[in-house]
Amino acid sequence: MKADLRAAGVRDLGRQGPPRASDRASLRRSNLGLVLRLLRDAGPRPRTQIADETGLPKATITNLVAELVEHGLVREGEAERHGSVGRPGRTVEIDGRTICGIGVEINVDYLSLIAFDLRSDVIAERHTPLDARGSEPDAVLDRMAEAIGETCDALRARGVHPVAVTIAAPGVIGMDTGVVSYASNIGWRDVAVVDGLRTRLGPKAPPLRLENDAKLGAIAEYLVAATSDIHDLIYVTGETGVGGGIISDGRLLRGSAGFAGEIGHMPLDPGGQPCACGRQGCWETMVGLAALLRLAAAPDDPVHDTTVDLEHRLAELRRRADAGDPATRAALDRIADGLALGLALLADVLNPRAIVLGGYFAHFGDHLVDRVRGELSARVMAHEAGRCEVMLSTLGFSAAARGGAYMALDSVYQDPSGVSAVSGV
Amino acid sequence: MKADLRAAGVRDLGRQGPPRASDRASLRRSNLGLVLRLLRDAGPRPRTQIADETGLPKATITNLVAELVEHGLVREGEAERHGSVGRPGRTVEIDGRTICGIGVEINVDYLSLIAFDLRSDVIAERHTPLDARGSEPDAVLDRMAEAIGETCDALRARGVHPVAVTIAAPGVIGMDTGVVSYASNIGWRDVAVVDGLRTRLGPKAPPLRLENDAKLGAIAEYLVAATSDIHDLIYVTGETGVGGGIISDGRLLRGSAGFAGEIGHMPLDPGGQPCACGRQGCWETMVGLAALLRLAAAPDDPVHDTTVDLEHRLAELRRRADAGDPATRAALDRIADGLALGLALLADVLNPRAIVLGGYFAHFGDHLVDRVRGELSARVMAHEAGRCEVMLSTLGFSAAARGGAYMALDSVYQDPSGVSAVSGV
Repeated sequence: MKADLRAAGVRDLGRQGPPRASDRASLRRSNLGLVLRLLRDAGPRPRTQIADETGLPKATITNLVAELVEHGLVREGEAERHGSVGRPGRTVEIDGRTICGIGVEINVDYLSLIAFDLRSDVIAERHTPLDARGSEPDAVLDRMAEAIGETCDALRARGVHPVAVTIAAPGVIGMDTGVVSYASNIGWRDVAVVDGLRTRLGPKAPPLRLENDAKLGAIAEYLVAATSDIHDLIYVTGETGVGGGIISDGRLLRGSAGFAGEIGHMPLDPGGQPCACGRQGCWETMVGLAALLRLAAAPDDPVHDTTVDLEHRLAELRRRADAGDPATRAALDRIADGLALGLALLADVLNPRAIVLGGYFAHFGDHLVDRVRGELSARVMAHEAGRCEVMLSTLGFSAAARGGAYMALDSVYQDPSGVSAVSGV
Repeated sequence: MKADLRAAGVRDLGRQGPPRASDRASLRRSNLGLVLRLLRDAGPRPRTQIADETGLPKATITNLVAELVEHGLVREGEAERHGSVGRPGRTVEIDGRTICGIGVEINVDYLSLIAFDLRSDVIAERHTPLDARGSEPDAVLDRMAEAIGETCDALRARGVHPVAVTIAAPGVIGMDTGVVSYASNIGWRDVAVVDGLRTRLGPKAPPLRLENDAKLGAIAEYLVAATSDIHDLIYVTGETGVGGGIISDGRLLRGSAGFAGEIGHMPLDPGGQPCACGRQGCWETMVGLAALLRLAAAPDDPVHDTTVDLEHRLAELRRRADAGDPATRAALDRIADGLALGLALLADVLNPRAIVLGGYFAHFGDHLVDRVRGELSARVMAHEAGRCEVMLSTLGFSAAARGGAYMALDSVYQDPSGVSAVSGV
């Protein structure tokens, strides 16, 4: 009897997969990326150490570093003496001040843009209020194209080349097609975001890519959490809808077609409130912004007045909660319980080391978090919630755009040789 | 403003992480594993090709292959000519007939054992009925130790060295401690399985490791599915409880402490049936074996007679379903609907390419699967269920033990140099 375990397609179940370079040129590209990622993840180090750590010969490393220096992606710094003998080695470190990645987030009421150079310094940032729901998609795309175009022009004028742009959008998106299939909160269905922006921006535009906002938020949160050695986390953001992004063992979990992280429609309240998706009792009807407003205030309360900016209405609720208003506090307790119900389910399925709450959950975090932690501990099947911590996001509105800027630079880390081909600088 | 993205702990978000060998000896071990995994995953190939694909120098590959041959892990086969010129190269392939990994599954009513050699040939197998629920844990451990001990003795007598044993157990397990914390279906709480077996087996025993049965089942199913290029799947097994194992992008998703995949207690039926966990309306109260029996037959029906073997009672239900009995068919429809409700949630969160149904779900699969597929398609937020296919397991009772045997060999693939140290053959 033969168990076919060595089937061609089986990927390694351990940590490191074998490199799969198929020819010399792609092997070289792959090695350039290997060195660049090592410098990003582990910091500046001399060439001899890079050779040791990558297992590549020293002569190869010398060539690779020279090519990376030529592309402007790394630089050689101070001489450093290793131990007491031998030639001093100069440390190699990420440079890349002449290239950048851009992240742009479109959400219900704002447009946010951020640009990182390869050293992860923020070199451009803008946050613009925008009524995405009340505008035609074409008008929103006009505004996005304007923001991207102006930023690219300004950066190029400073000698910085934008290598790519990641667009963060809410809802179900097609990563390959660049289409927002369905985003109930901004009322979009089948909006061709990437094509629309490409047409508007013309041939000078950097490559554009679309990704779900909560996934990019999860990446941004992971960059923070990883400094505490946390490599499994769920980012849960509460806005009109509830979005999620999952980092599992240091990787963004996309699923087979990029649709993973759709947590807002878990059927946790059968027969409950109607949901924007057409069903009833989805998790976001229990814990989304509409639920907070509904639970916290009678129908004639001014916080329901949609002519008033949402931010002001939330500030008012925040003020009441801080003042100990019983109705507001009770509403937040209900939200905390609903939140814990869904989070416990996700913790059972995914066993994260951390759950990071973003959006309005972070805004009301101090009123929610203790109760959420207690309920989670009581609900999760594994002892002490499987060691899962509940944290509040500190990135505010910039999380998704930050994750987008980081992802935009990923193409450079995967294939650093591509930079010279597109860069005019 | 500085975004600290190059923090020391951030792991690569792309596919390939940099190797992290810290010295020559561990680099060598890591390279031995790299070559061995390449041969497992991609099949026999000449040394020159291994050098190309790993990026390691040919002289290094020659040394590594010689060491693997010495350990009995690979062999050099027929000469093969590449293209029309050059010296013919001999292909290198996995050998490893003198070592094996063992998987042992303990479940409610059986003990299953399987051994694979490094070529993935099954070289030992046994399946023993066992009343785990009606026995003291110590008595069950006695039986397990007996099965493992006898198998190891028999294999050693044939010159085969067992490198490790993986124990598959239901419920929440501590991978590091080797303790089954909580397994409601066999009535275990805090049973020190690894220590108990180690004491019984004595110093000659191979290293023992404990893992959740559904996770190991998922690995076994993945080894099948990967041949169809499926690398994201959820294995869902229906027994008294409902267990799950998740493969994401070709890796077993364990979560931060190994507790991931706990899907049986999703709160999908508030106020529903009482669950073994002490709460009400958990998913397994809707779709576990008890639900099927309850829905399919009146309380006085003979299928509830616990003095009759469960297998016979299920065969009777199967017979009724095949004969078109309306009550049985209606019960199976209810199960299919409940199944689809939870599977759609999991498909939204994880976007798998396939869901593989095991346990009794597979046994009644032809009566369930069409309805599950239809409901899933209607429920999942992404179009066409995010391309998720529902499949029936074909591995039967051996899935978890198979996954265990495969995992037991993993130590060899991670560090092939360890084999000579423990092997007496």
